[in-house]
Formats: sequence, C-alpha cells, structure tokens
Amino acid sequence: MIKHNELTDMNKQQLFENIKRKKSFLCVGLDTDIKKIPQHLLNDEDPIFAFNKAIIDATADYCVAYKPNAAFYESVGMKGIAALEKTIAYISEKYPDQFIILDAKRGDIGNTSEMYARSAFEHLNASAITVAPYMGEDSVKPFLVYEGKWVIVLALTSNKGSQDFQFMQDTDGERLFEKVMRTTQKWATEDQLMFVVGATQGKMFTDIRKVSPNHFLLVPGVGAQGGSLQDVAEYGMNDTCGLLVNSSRQIIFAAADDTFAQAAGVEARKVQQEMEALLVAKGLL
Amino acid sequence: MIKHNELTDMNKQQLFENIKRKKSFLCVGLDTDIKKIPQHLLNDEDPIFAFNKAIIDATADYCVAYKPNAAFYESVGMKGIAALEKTIAYISEKYPDQFIILDAKRGDIGNTSEMYARSAFEHLNASAITVAPYMGEDSVKPFLVYEGKWVIVLALTSNKGSQDFQFMQDTDGERLFEKVMRTTQKWATEDQLMFVVGATQGKMFTDIRKVSPNHFLLVPGVGAQGGSLQDVAEYGMNDTCGLLVNSSRQIIFAAADDTFAQAAGVEARKVQQEMEALLVAKGLL
Repeated sequence: MIKHNELTDMNKQQLFENIKRKKSFLCVGLDTDIKKIPQHLLNDEDPIFAFNKAIIDATADYCVAYKPNAAFYESVGMKGIAALEKTIAYISEKYPDQFIILDAKRGDIGNTSEMYARSAFEHLNASAITVAPYMGEDSVKPFLVYEGKWVIVLALTSNKGSQDFQFMQDTDGERLFEKVMRTTQKWATEDQLMFVVGATQGKMFTDIRKVSPNHFLLVPGVGAQGGSLQDVAEYGMNDTCGLLVNSSRQIIFAAADDTFAQAAGVEARKVQQEMEALLVAKGLL
Repeated sequence: MIKHNELTDMNKQQLFENIKRKKSFLCVGLDTDIKKIPQHLLNDEDPIFAFNKAIIDATADYCVAYKPNAAFYESVGMKGIAALEKTIAYISEKYPDQFIILDAKRGDIGNTSEMYARSAFEHLNASAITVAPYMGEDSVKPFLVYEGKWVIVLALTSNKGSQDFQFMQDTDGERLFEKVMRTTQKWATEDQLMFVVGATQGKMFTDIRKVSPNHFLLVPGVGAQGGSLQDVAEYGMNDTCGLLVNSSRQIIFAAADDTFAQAAGVEARKVQQEMEALLVAKGLL
C-alpha cells in the first residue's frame, strides 16, 4: 500500500503560481473509455494506461491538473484499477506540478468515508477527491484529515438533473447548493476545499461568488456538455483565478486514430491560449 | 467481463417470498476491514475473501441479503476489488436466493453513471446498488435500464450529518428527503427502487411511510450505530414487510479469534429470531 506521501500535495497559493506559470487553468479529464480508445492500442498490455500516458505527455504543457474519473476505470474491474494506479503514479512522478483530482463523487458514514479517503490519499495518492454532500459533515470530514489534500464538494453540477434538488429553496430563500457551500466552508480552510460548479450554469457564477468569493471552483461542462469558457471566466474568476476548468471528451477523444495524442495536444493548446487571454484580461498575468 | 446475467435478479414479490421462507429480513453488511479480520486469516492467499466466505457460510440461513461496502474493498486497491468480485460470485452461485447490494453511494452525470452501472451490474453482477440523489434524474436513470436490478436511493441516512441537508425544508413544508423520495418514485417501479432510511431515525419512519407506503427500505444503523429494530418494525413495516435491515459490525466482527464465523452465525441467528417475532406480530407469517 502506498502511504500518504507529499508528492501530490499542493496549497492554494502553489496552485495559483502554477496557473500563472503555465498561463492555463485547464484540467484534463481522463474519462478513458476502453470502447473509445484507438484500435491499435488494444494490443498493448495495458491499453488504458498506454492511452493515458500518451495523452498526458501531449497535454502536460497546457494544463495544471488531471482528473481521472473513477467510474471509467471501475467499469473494467481490476485491470481498470491497475491502470488508474499507474496513471496517477505516472503523473505525480513525471509532472509533479500537476494537481491530480480523483473524480469519484464519494460520501458515506464516517467509518466508510475513512476507507474512501484511505483509497484516494494513501493508496492512489491523488491531490484531491470529489465528494457528494448529501450525507453531511461526518461524511466529508474524514477526507479533511490529510494535510495537503483537498476535498471538492458538489455544489451546482453541470447536468440537467441539477434542477431536481440543487435549486430547492428554504423559507429564507437559500437554495440547497448555496446551503451546501455555506455550510461546508465551516469545516475546512480555503487550502483544502473547492466546489464543483458546472460551466453550463453561466451567470449562476455570480451567485456562487457571493457565497464563496475566494474558493477555487472545479468547473466541468465546457466542451461536450456545452458550457462557455468566456462566461465562466467573466462571472467566476477571482484574484487568484479561482477556477480549474475541466475538459474531457473534447480533448482526449479529439481524434480516434494514431494521431489521437497529437490531436489532444492541439486541442489542449487551443484551450490554454483562450485561457491565457482571459487571465491577461483579468490582469492576473 | 461478466455480462449481465439473471442470477442475481429479483423482483419485489420474490424478495418478500424469501423473507417469509427465511423468517428474516436481515441484510448482513460485508464491511470487511482488513485491519479487523482475525490474524490467522492473514496467511491466506486472499484474506478478505476467506473472511467473507466463512461469514457467508455461517450466516446465509439467517439472512435474505448481503451488502458488501465498496469502500472497504477499494481501500486496499486491486486485491480488494478481486475479493469483492469473488465474494459476489460466491454468494450468487452458492446462495442464489440472496439479494446482493453493492453499497457504493454512486451518482454522476449520465455518461459516468452508465459506467458505474456497468461496473455494478455487468462486471460485478450485484442485484442492487446504493445511489446518492444530489445530481438528480440523469444521474440515477442509467442504473434503471437493467431489468431485474435495483437502485437504492439515499433518503434519510443513519448518521449525525443527516441533519445538515436532508431536513432542509422548502416553502411548502416539504423536506429534502421527502422531495427525493417523491421525485425518484416517478422514475422507477416498486420492483426496482428502494430507499435508504437509517434505523437511528426511529419515529421518522411514520413520515417516510406517508411518502412511500409500498417501497422496500434498506435500513442501516441497527447495532453499532444504535438504532432500534423494534422501532423500525413498528413504524416502518408494511404488508410485504418492506424492510431490509442491515447489520454489519455487530455480526461480522462478533469475535476476533478463530471462532469469528461461528460467533457471526450466533449473532445473525439472534437477529433473525427477533425478526421472526416481529413478522409474526405483523401477521406476515
């Protein structure tokens, strides 16, 4: 078992420094679907890792974070878990300035969340894990005892179903996503807590920044899901950037043949350049 | 990859028939913590599976369901996943009348929930999976396309943190857990949807049964967490029983030496006898 080492630890200031140095706040989502990777890789001993390694080498100059999505690895069983372990180890050793997010949406009673935390931070050695808030404080706290590690709590998600419960409003006019953000801020510092806010929510970022002006936000939904990077930056960027914008499918599946890695690099560079312009416009570069 | 086979499929009526035949509505939680299993098993090639196998053989007569908790298996990486696969395969082959719940609290955007569903129902071949509702309809629906399989949605959980968000009340007086139950019932039949309601919530079962008179409830929190089986039956039982009451630590860690399996059997039998009396009192036997 890999003990918690400090290789993937990062605080808020270090993350911001990386963003300025790389002129990017891009997170590349490693939603590696075995059914979508180029045919020629299927002959490899570990096709998922081979795909990820090529994608990572092609995109590392243009991003500050990687986000492997646990579901895609779990869906193929042990081989998938092996590929996930190798992927995180590869990133943390070859590109130690990258922030590594295990996208897992975990959350359970205390003794069970402890096990998920052990998995994310002692075994896999990610920098951060995404967590679902429904079960409250004791479901989130076990992830917060690892110094240097982050919890990224679901607030306002990018999907259509975000309408079902997240906008529920209490008698004081507070909505569930706001209550989640306001409440969880009491449990953690700004060096260990982010929120998931979907890019598809556009102008909602103004409301988000009222509740949480300083926290970093992990923003999925740009690209395949249709969110606008311009809107996210306009309404969501703060004076330490405060944004990690994720793109998965648009980058990693930019091409389906043996140019896939090169194509991913081209796409990532395109996004990085847009981001550079937005950081300059905000006066952060 | 194991394709979806029908071995672990079950409908509501079949589940009720099993409850009547076994005179039990006990679910044994396989929260198998490698740090808590008897020392002598650590020499086994697969200590986690060896422990589970012994527990299952000792308790199968007294329960109608098993609930492996994914976190405990993930926390030790690939070896844990291997043990989880073997455990589910063992139960479904040797005890095909057992309902197998993968306790995983999953839920993500549609294309990701699809992967979690593939993992639970095609790869691991569980009968059911626990799902967190925060992300709404498209995060739950991908689990519902497998005929014969169940989704068990978090409603009112057994932990202290259930107070943080689940009791949030909207302007019509509806609480979040009630909204979750009322809304998700529109997405699924009673043959594929249960709710998690913690035993620690006692008289709240009366409110739960107002929203959902007919659904099965998965009830954790009896035993180590302090919930009362009497209260659960009094306020929660309906005319098809409608309850699967889970006990984990109290049964599987009843003894820490080489009598662990026998001790687990004794504990499970004790609970089964209490349950038999409650079923008789309700007129279901």
